[in-house]
Amino acid sequence: MGDAQQITIWQDKVSLARARRDAGLAKVEPKLEGIPDVLPLSSQDLPKSVLTARELEITEKYSVTELLKILREKKISVEEVTRAFLRRAALAQAATNCLTELLWDEAIARAKHLDSLPEPKGAFFGLPISTKEHHGMVGKNIKTSASYAAWVETEHTSNLLYDILYSEGCVFYARTTQPQTIMHLETESNVYGRTVNPYNRDLTPGGSSGGESALVGIRGSILGVGGDIGGSVRCPSAHVGIYGFKPSSKRISVAGQKANMAGKETILSTPGPMTVERDAVELFMKVAIANEPWRLDPSLTAKPWTPYTFTKPLKIAVQWWDGVVQLHPPMRRALEEVAAACRKAGHEVVDWNCESLGHDEAWDIISGLYWPDGGEEVMNLMNSTGEPILPLTKFIIEEQPSVKKMTVPELWDICARRDAYRARYAKAWTATAANGEREVDVILCPPSFGAAAPHEQSRYWGYTSQWNLLDYPAVVFPVTTVDQVKDVKDPNYVPKNEKDRFVYQMYSPEKYVNAPVSLQIVGRRQYDEKVLAALKEIERAMGRP
Amino acid sequence: MGDAQQITIWQDKVSLARARRDAGLAKVEPKLEGIPDVLPLSSQDLPKSVLTARELEITEKYSVTELLKILREKKISVEEVTRAFLRRAALAQAATNCLTELLWDEAIARAKHLDSLPEPKGAFFGLPISTKEHHGMVGKNIKTSASYAAWVETEHTSNLLYDILYSEGCVFYARTTQPQTIMHLETESNVYGRTVNPYNRDLTPGGSSGGESALVGIRGSILGVGGDIGGSVRCPSAHVGIYGFKPSSKRISVAGQKANMAGKETILSTPGPMTVERDAVELFMKVAIANEPWRLDPSLTAKPWTPYTFTKPLKIAVQWWDGVVQLHPPMRRALEEVAAACRKAGHEVVDWNCESLGHDEAWDIISGLYWPDGGEEVMNLMNSTGEPILPLTKFIIEEQPSVKKMTVPELWDICARRDAYRARYAKAWTATAANGEREVDVILCPPSFGAAAPHEQSRYWGYTSQWNLLDYPAVVFPVTTVDQVKDVKDPNYVPKNEKDRFVYQMYSPEKYVNAPVSLQIVGRRQYDEKVLAALKEIERAMGRP
Repeated sequence: MGDAQQITIWQDKVSLARARRDAGLAKVEPKLEGIPDVLPLSSQDLPKSVLTARELEITEKYSVTELLKILREKKISVEEVTRAFLRRAALAQAATNCLTELLWDEAIARAKHLDSLPEPKGAFFGLPISTKEHHGMVGKNIKTSASYAAWVETEHTSNLLYDILYSEGCVFYARTTQPQTIMHLETESNVYGRTVNPYNRDLTPGGSSGGESALVGIRGSILGVGGDIGGSVRCPSAHVGIYGFKPSSKRISVAGQKANMAGKETILSTPGPMTVERDAVELFMKVAIANEPWRLDPSLTAKPWTPYTFTKPLKIAVQWWDGVVQLHPPMRRALEEVAAACRKAGHEVVDWNCESLGHDEAWDIISGLYWPDGGEEVMNLMNSTGEPILPLTKFIIEEQPSVKKMTVPELWDICARRDAYRARYAKAWTATAANGEREVDVILCPPSFGAAAPHEQSRYWGYTSQWNLLDYPAVVFPVTTVDQVKDVKDPNYVPKNEKDRFVYQMYSPEKYVNAPVSLQIVGRRQYDEKVLAALKEIERAMGRP
Repeated sequence: MGDAQQITIWQDKVSLARARRDAGLAKVEPKLEGIPDVLPLSSQDLPKSVLTARELEITEKYSVTELLKILREKKISVEEVTRAFLRRAALAQAATNCLTELLWDEAIARAKHLDSLPEPKGAFFGLPISTKEHHGMVGKNIKTSASYAAWVETEHTSNLLYDILYSEGCVFYARTTQPQTIMHLETESNVYGRTVNPYNRDLTPGGSSGGESALVGIRGSILGVGGDIGGSVRCPSAHVGIYGFKPSSKRISVAGQKANMAGKETILSTPGPMTVERDAVELFMKVAIANEPWRLDPSLTAKPWTPYTFTKPLKIAVQWWDGVVQLHPPMRRALEEVAAACRKAGHEVVDWNCESLGHDEAWDIISGLYWPDGGEEVMNLMNSTGEPILPLTKFIIEEQPSVKKMTVPELWDICARRDAYRARYAKAWTATAANGEREVDVILCPPSFGAAAPHEQSRYWGYTSQWNLLDYPAVVFPVTTVDQVKDVKDPNYVPKNEKDRFVYQMYSPEKYVNAPVSLQIVGRRQYDEKVLAALKEIERAMGRP
């Protein structure tokens, strides 16, 4: 009977959350028509059969900076832009299940207000920006569940970053899904169900900012905000072929986010932009920092955004694998292609030999740092309503040997291990400048062992979480897609360990039809500006001016 | 019998440590002569009856920057300078008991080496720099006890900051005392005994960097390095009338220091300079950061030292008291004098009304953050040899209501309280710019309720620890000395609480003969450069160009 009651509790909560979501979607006007009953594998062609020509133009023709320009010049109204993105976001929801809420009335009211101003005002004037649900935001009727049944319909106060974006004139119009505990590299929760990849619905859009990636991946948004503590901006961005940036922690504020374990400081998350345009990444960073947010959130680094420019060719270290898990063929090919392009453009390309740097040890440390209470707080939260514990939650809490309920001295021990590991890695980087050589500028590396994984298979975080442990800034950018001809499986490969076997067995090209393949550029801690400068140079080498 | 054995253990350890200290002092050549059997109240006149005229000239005539200039110009040899400071440091030891070790042979060998170089090299070429013992340093025979009997004669690896100072050409020649646990605002340990104030041996030189302050306070050093997590650079600097700077944490590395609770990150200590000269403070910071130490200690903020210049009069907020404990008359007078000078020089002087900002709550938080294990680790360390627990150790561990052995969730709670408090204070500071006013540049405040306290009376940390909790940079500078005529006690004052009563009852002018009185300038977190610029402006207003 206790169980039956509990089931009622979590299911009632889920119904409330979905009712809120559906109420927003029901306002879409005109209604979406032309969505097939059986959705195709790829959602990429859906917009042209559902949206108007004008809506397609507004949502597809412009980059972020171009759209901002015509908005600022009043060549297009904020309301028209907003309505187009609202309808496209609703379509994205139908195709991928990426939304927790469509803010139809609020967004249109905001748009009308902005249109009524005598002068356009703010760096993001009129731009629809989509947001990860648990971040919350200003707004009188904003509730935030962070995808926990227990927190459904919880009031939310304002979020400092979003206050800044809002004061810069943006329009909030769509809030997006995240997985249970916000700690999967996929996006499934009891509250909102599973979000799928807009390029291939049999694949994950990644996570934990997978609602954002699914939405931006079908241009239901062209600039969204995710968050990253183990890959949660970069993994989903990579899986849909968009730009995603994880700055060093404490450049952008997390103040106001709804999350577990308030006060935990063993490992820090950071918000980051997810966008269709390279230049929008840096624009976002500039705007987020421009008004010295450390004057309100004093935990932030008091350091203005200082754009970096390379004056000579880069020294790029390529990480061909991480010493733990081999890359799938398309990821290997992407790395080879970009490294070749960089060499051809005159950059110095060397290997990043990290086998001696213990990326497996790094995982051992960071997975322990995620849950210093052994996961008790989140387990209690989920058990309080009886919501089922999903497989990838069990994976990240129960199946990691380092996760345990620690005493304070045990916590100090693992923090000391973390610090020693960071110092070791920093010294290895600095040592690249030994013997009169130049120091490596950035590491070019995979953001994952491969393209987007089939659902529930995202059980190796090492290619992203490594840089969270080190707190290194890292940006993801699109490179190619899985090629059924080129990216054949090597039948003779002998896996080196259990994790490697799991990843190897996951691959066969036909599972990955249409899947985008992306790469990652990593810089030293707090060299955020340099990483974005390197992105520009590397993309130039790839023929993207 | 167990007790008797234990007593032997700690006493044996103490004998070892003192034998090492005495062996270094025994090398002093020529021997010190002319020290009276009964030491006078003030040690300030001792040098002229013990040292040669040339030694007095070398150690008294020059500021740090002046001495560096003539060393660089080879107008004086490093060896001559080193020998003069070695002998003066030995005298300081005889007068105040401030040394753990005199590095006679090592310093002279180093000096000869520097003299033998074809070209002077390094920002600190030839300068003797004194160091707090638990920081350790490079050197083949360096042992570090951190004043714990248990750690006496423990090997020490190098310290990053000291590696930098060394590579800039300095001479390490004297290591200085710190109190048991390094957590008193005085300087007494079982290993080395009690250090006294060079202006009045009945008073403390402050702590925990009280060996440094006693040494620099009698010019046995003109530049030393202390460390600060609750006032440990500023309190001792203030008590001997020298300059002492606590930068924001993570500007200067602590990597390599010997300390308890490795991995603790609830509240962070920072090294800082203690010196006779204002300009040497900024010089020290520049040198410490010049070579991007974050490339070896990646926990540091990657931010170059960027000198700040005021282009208009300052807005200075004066904290007349902290809402908990009233100031002794000489401290009140110092504040009034400097505030008046600032007003006269054209600066805007306003009040820092912090009664609503809960400085008592801040103490409640930070005292808990110091010992998240309830002090168990350090108690075990002391009990392992049976060394007695000193009264001020009991005060800071056992007598603080917030100190308890925490679980990890309890640790998170107090960290969340800390962060909320910091945010509240930051908002209050930002709010000084409301209604079109200018924002306050710096807070001018006392570094203590009064001058140096009589021994074992330093039981109120609030005037310094407040800025550690907030991680605000703060510099201390000399202002005046206690005046037997002006600084009379108000017999009618009614204490507001128990702490206030304790502090009030401590005062009567005749206890504080000769005692220096200093003030403190505090800036927003990570505005270190601005604080030192404000120091310059405020001293100019005081007639110190």
